[in-house]
Amino acid sequence: MRRACITGGAGFIGSNLADRLLADGVEVVVLDDFRTGRRAFLRDAAEHPRFRLVEGDVLSPGVLEDALAGCDWVFHLQANADVRHGLEHPQLDLEQNTIATSKVLEAMREAGVANIVFSSTGSVYGEPEVFPTPEDAPFPLQTSLYGASKLACEGLIAAYATGFSITGVICRFVSILGERYTHGHVIDFVRSLKDDPKAITVLGDGKQEKSYLYVQDCIEAILTAAARHEGEGGAHVYNLGTDETVIVDESLGLITDRLGCSPTVRHTGGARGWAGDSPLIRLDTSKIRSLGWAPRLTIAEAIGKTVDWLEHNEHVWQPQVRA
Amino acid sequence: MRRACITGGAGFIGSNLADRLLADGVEVVVLDDFRTGRRAFLRDAAEHPRFRLVEGDVLSPGVLEDALAGCDWVFHLQANADVRHGLEHPQLDLEQNTIATSKVLEAMREAGVANIVFSSTGSVYGEPEVFPTPEDAPFPLQTSLYGASKLACEGLIAAYATGFSITGVICRFVSILGERYTHGHVIDFVRSLKDDPKAITVLGDGKQEKSYLYVQDCIEAILTAAARHEGEGGAHVYNLGTDETVIVDESLGLITDRLGCSPTVRHTGGARGWAGDSPLIRLDTSKIRSLGWAPRLTIAEAIGKTVDWLEHNEHVWQPQVRA
Repeated sequence: MRRACITGGAGFIGSNLADRLLADGVEVVVLDDFRTGRRAFLRDAAEHPRFRLVEGDVLSPGVLEDALAGCDWVFHLQANADVRHGLEHPQLDLEQNTIATSKVLEAMREAGVANIVFSSTGSVYGEPEVFPTPEDAPFPLQTSLYGASKLACEGLIAAYATGFSITGVICRFVSILGERYTHGHVIDFVRSLKDDPKAITVLGDGKQEKSYLYVQDCIEAILTAAARHEGEGGAHVYNLGTDETVIVDESLGLITDRLGCSPTVRHTGGARGWAGDSPLIRLDTSKIRSLGWAPRLTIAEAIGKTVDWLEHNEHVWQPQVRA
Repeated sequence: MRRACITGGAGFIGSNLADRLLADGVEVVVLDDFRTGRRAFLRDAAEHPRFRLVEGDVLSPGVLEDALAGCDWVFHLQANADVRHGLEHPQLDLEQNTIATSKVLEAMREAGVANIVFSSTGSVYGEPEVFPTPEDAPFPLQTSLYGASKLACEGLIAAYATGFSITGVICRFVSILGERYTHGHVIDFVRSLKDDPKAITVLGDGKQEKSYLYVQDCIEAILTAAARHEGEGGAHVYNLGTDETVIVDESLGLITDRLGCSPTVRHTGGARGWAGDSPLIRLDTSKIRSLGWAPRLTIAEAIGKTVDWLEHNEHVWQPQVRA
């Protein structure tokens, strides 16, 4: 890996990856439109001589061409990641995920970029019947527009890998936690408890079983798979997660302990927090583990680190003022 | 079923379906832009008092709204069906299949249309490892842009079925043959043999094993599944095909016998006719059979009927002059 473009490189995972790749000696081009990415997350990277920022939308003409010039890898992390509110704006997943990924693949062909890592999601399994869920689980039915759009991206990448000589590494993430975490249930809980430490509302029955992965473990897994398949051709799918799960109510308990509060908890009820929420996510991670990778942090440790970081970075979860 | 819109209703399957639904007493709205659809295929339907034609592109504003008004069913058959040349124009599958299907689903919500049948494809299984391939085969890798785009459509339909109260019937077709057949290997062979009955070139090694279904059997299967799930909610996936397969060279033999010629056959070689061609397609059709459906014609009979029809309808396979 010589020069890598990270789409969505000012985001949570992208900016951590940028720092890591710079430390590893790679030239890094971050492409971000700062719709949800944060300039503060690139503060260190921006000081680095091997860093370049391309500010723009992947859907705008010329932006990808600029960003991908001379790259041998793309880490395509840019996405609409709002799985919960997909039904309120059904076009967003299509545009920001499916169409955007198609544009990235076309730009790769134009620029001769040979390798792509794609941030997919365990949501592509819908409501699986096999646990832990392996990469070759029974062909699932999609239950969310987010999952459907990520599956569409996976299909595009695999078809391009078959038809053109590119290598695709498709990583199906569980939810990621850690420094620079900006959205998801931990931040929702922290924001609510900071606002009112005495009471909190939990979507669903609180018994949804979820899996999480610490961001540095996630990045290590991505880079392990990328190194294994560089230049090999074809599409390679990996589940990324821990072998643990945590119940939403347990997760809330870890957060309230960390914050030192003991709210009364109200549940909205139902097995799903929202339409398309999966009541149980537990991925089989034996494939990525077979490459020698293992997570360093437990889910409880990752939640702890995330809460600590949020407490010291209120700007992330407080209403954002655009500069 | 009271009023049904058929997108791509002037096409091969669509126009046959229109005739069938009119005969069954349904009001039929055909939506077609006549890019590949044929006016001649609607000659009988157009005479019918329960028939309405909406001429336009599903991607153009207002067209779907017009076509879907008052419908309780959409048969979404419109698509770019050129699986073989997908790599030459990668945007076409995205626009004509994925984005178009998203527009259809949005228009259904707007118009309150509760049910959709979608023409998917066995190509979504990529190169499967399980034969015959059931609907819940191991999560496949896509090998063609066509298959990837159809999978993206399936995902959208299933996500809409989860999030909004619509019912999706997803039919994964093998190749369809019969009256009004307008593209695929049978027409390619007939065209070539009419041009030169003494020699023919076959893409690949001629050993690719394919499955075909007669168009009236296909329509019967679609309507059987539609009747079963009307108003039920959720997404329901069915393989549609016969339990037979045919080798490409055998298929050529049936065609040359019918045409009374005996050409020398040259194979371009390789297990695949083109990048993304599947060397073996055999779908498990036990699920649709469990609804009481069975095909009436064998593959050989379907090929025979198709060749006969092509011989009497030269306008279909000769270079088309646009009116």
